[in-house]
Amino acid sequence: MDAHVNTLPSIENDFPAWYAEVVRRAGLAENAAVRGMMVIKPYGYGIWELLQRQMDDRIKATGHENFYFPMLMPASVLAKEADLVEGFAPEVAVVTEAGGSKLEEPLVLRPTSEAVIWSTYGRWLQSYRDLPMLYNQWANVVRWELRPRLFLRTSEFLWQEGHTAHETEQQAVAECLRILHEVYADTQHSVLAMPALLGRKSAAERFPGARETFTAEAMMGDRKALQAATSHYLGDEFARAYGVTYTGRDGSEHHPYATSWGSTTRLVGAVIMMHGDERGLRLPPAVAPYQVVVIPIQPGDSPVLEQAHALAAELRAAGIRVKLDDRVHVRPGAKFFEWELKGAPIRVELGERELARDEVSVARRDREPRELLSLDRLAERLQAMLGEIHRELFDRAAEHLADNTRSFDDRAELIEYLKAGSGFAVTAWCGSPECEAAIKAETSATLRCLALEPEDPGAPCPVCAGPGVETATWAQAY
Amino acid sequence: MDAHVNTLPSIENDFPAWYAEVVRRAGLAENAAVRGMMVIKPYGYGIWELLQRQMDDRIKATGHENFYFPMLMPASVLAKEADLVEGFAPEVAVVTEAGGSKLEEPLVLRPTSEAVIWSTYGRWLQSYRDLPMLYNQWANVVRWELRPRLFLRTSEFLWQEGHTAHETEQQAVAECLRILHEVYADTQHSVLAMPALLGRKSAAERFPGARETFTAEAMMGDRKALQAATSHYLGDEFARAYGVTYTGRDGSEHHPYATSWGSTTRLVGAVIMMHGDERGLRLPPAVAPYQVVVIPIQPGDSPVLEQAHALAAELRAAGIRVKLDDRVHVRPGAKFFEWELKGAPIRVELGERELARDEVSVARRDREPRELLSLDRLAERLQAMLGEIHRELFDRAAEHLADNTRSFDDRAELIEYLKAGSGFAVTAWCGSPECEAAIKAETSATLRCLALEPEDPGAPCPVCAGPGVETATWAQAY
Repeated sequence: MDAHVNTLPSIENDFPAWYAEVVRRAGLAENAAVRGMMVIKPYGYGIWELLQRQMDDRIKATGHENFYFPMLMPASVLAKEADLVEGFAPEVAVVTEAGGSKLEEPLVLRPTSEAVIWSTYGRWLQSYRDLPMLYNQWANVVRWELRPRLFLRTSEFLWQEGHTAHETEQQAVAECLRILHEVYADTQHSVLAMPALLGRKSAAERFPGARETFTAEAMMGDRKALQAATSHYLGDEFARAYGVTYTGRDGSEHHPYATSWGSTTRLVGAVIMMHGDERGLRLPPAVAPYQVVVIPIQPGDSPVLEQAHALAAELRAAGIRVKLDDRVHVRPGAKFFEWELKGAPIRVELGERELARDEVSVARRDREPRELLSLDRLAERLQAMLGEIHRELFDRAAEHLADNTRSFDDRAELIEYLKAGSGFAVTAWCGSPECEAAIKAETSATLRCLALEPEDPGAPCPVCAGPGVETATWAQAY
Repeated sequence: MDAHVNTLPSIENDFPAWYAEVVRRAGLAENAAVRGMMVIKPYGYGIWELLQRQMDDRIKATGHENFYFPMLMPASVLAKEADLVEGFAPEVAVVTEAGGSKLEEPLVLRPTSEAVIWSTYGRWLQSYRDLPMLYNQWANVVRWELRPRLFLRTSEFLWQEGHTAHETEQQAVAECLRILHEVYADTQHSVLAMPALLGRKSAAERFPGARETFTAEAMMGDRKALQAATSHYLGDEFARAYGVTYTGRDGSEHHPYATSWGSTTRLVGAVIMMHGDERGLRLPPAVAPYQVVVIPIQPGDSPVLEQAHALAAELRAAGIRVKLDDRVHVRPGAKFFEWELKGAPIRVELGERELARDEVSVARRDREPRELLSLDRLAERLQAMLGEIHRELFDRAAEHLADNTRSFDDRAELIEYLKAGSGFAVTAWCGSPECEAAIKAETSATLRCLALEPEDPGAPCPVCAGPGVETATWAQAY
């Protein structure tokens, strides 16, 4: 490695500084002129695009169609659903002038689109035959952020938001769970190599206006939790607030039941924080803008460069995303360092010596040491290697999650563990908001989720010793 | 056809009413609560998504990467480039409050992103080795619209905007032309079956701040022009306004040369207005959300329905986008009418009688009559038919363009033709803004574009009789 290379801040001792430097040096994003907003740079956007397309495939495969609602809505539309406006009012941005004059009614930039969408669904829905309505949109939203952090908390972010309507409560809850499993958990597993704990939020942690919020909680490298996606069962509150009814099978008017569900560009932050190491990013192959980086050791040498081009073309033809780094003014050592920082899963080096033997040197980002491979059927072997890298990244992350999850029944031990940010703590919980608030007040850790199927009912709540009705997981969180 | 079916307004006698009704009844878009904004409904968004993906492939194939800049910028950033702020100031929307308090500096919603992007490029560009910078973004923009019309003029629209930086003027102009030909004209031809006239804008019609604007002008069904995409050569004005320099090959500091280029959701409107007929939409297969609609004539009959499912699965496996319309409460005649209105390229009907002979009835949206086809190798034949439909839609549109384009040298005849909105008029032009303004004042037609290679130099300008230096095309326009 070149002597001029600066090492990153220690991932062990200063995770936040490490994160900020990886985001900056890998060219993922930077702060924009407006405080709290970010520029998503090409390499960071490339990760998002790949994630987006693969998640969109799953959203469509589960029967949903995309649409697009405007980013501005009259303030009065947002105000119609009491919980929603109360939850989001402190974060909204307001347009008061447009087209050269002051507006009669201020317009708010969407912080989320339940309001603008449900104020329209009434026009689309007549009969039970129109149900379910299964729609999604990819959009930008604005929530004013006082403590911004690139990808994790930004005043504008990109996301998808699903908004569905159903005949029965059961169907709406089933939709929430289907999205949680078949869209979110599956994308996180198969695309992001990201294990996550699936569960329900407590009332205190729910989305404003939701009757139930389902969540996928992932563990980052520093053992904190990150909420990777949520899926909300909204009951018929939105239908009531916006006057949406349909003629049911019985011929009379009913309110439909709603869900909404979203996941955002913060998932790019999650990928960095889950898989990164002391040398920088490690990208799961399915979201790596370049899965294989080809580096000719003597790029000024035309036979080597020609061979590098031929190899890149062959790998591309096999469906691999390839970068040929043929810059002549950057030394090979600096390139190795740069592509390690940027997390490219595989690096292939070609030099005169190797080529004389019809070989190339192949380095996996996630493992030492590099190996010499024959050029024969290389594409096929690199494809297999990408699959292996994905599995090993997932397995390591799952091991990290298991290793840093502990069950507690003793209050003092629980508090100590959570205060130290040692990982996920699993306990029985009596269900009282007071016990939940007590733990949060003492540790600043939050109730991340409740098990979908409570274990060991009746076990004592570590706070009040009352009988547990839920299995709760607590952690420090992003 | 069912007796209850309402016919559309006449496409010949009231094109605007026909357009509005097709947009409404085909479920493409509708007006939102905020005046001038639109809800893009699932079927309309499906067209946009297909267009977007195929255009994005071409943007990447020509070496560009996507990124994302924030939708809000300080008003002072927009104000730095004089032409830009003058051009867009009357249309911007302004955020003055956010997060519960009044902002110190108002923020504008991007009407276009040259300003926010060029205020950042200085940080990304050090040396000539960093050039060219070839970037694009897909985003929503806001331009306050006083006379809105769905897809064609809306206060918020979706688009892509490319923003590139180059070492030399020649390279920047070559980029503009490459985008015009390899991205825009090719997408329009191969995806939208849309012939277009390529050319340059006159100074009066250029983008604010551009030295040259290249354009693709398409002819709609009513013989008006629609600007389908533009590509701007911006010189070094933006680099100067935002202080962007790099160290050149000679070791001294230089300003890079810029381009920007965009195309928007108005292309969905163009597809409707170019290919539609008296029965509604006719979608080019490459952007048809459903290329083949399968209609079981007796959907209550289980062998027929089973066969319909099997056929749909077979067509999908062949890569065809298929809708199986198995609604039992809608009669076949009403379905035929609906899918004609929605422009599905091919309709396949299955009934007991046909199935007894291993046949289906196939109706092309663009042609009479329907024909009986054997089930044997049907997917293959429908694929070929889709290709044919694309070619025929293109050929008809090209014929329409040729038939309604006339050359003029006589002023009175030119004026009469343009006032009547009879089509595109081609003339010599002396290049004077006064002659251009005279025609616009008399006819309300505009100079749509100047030929990339002027023909017949020296031929007299029909207004002043001075020697022509340009070949100009004039028309009424959207």
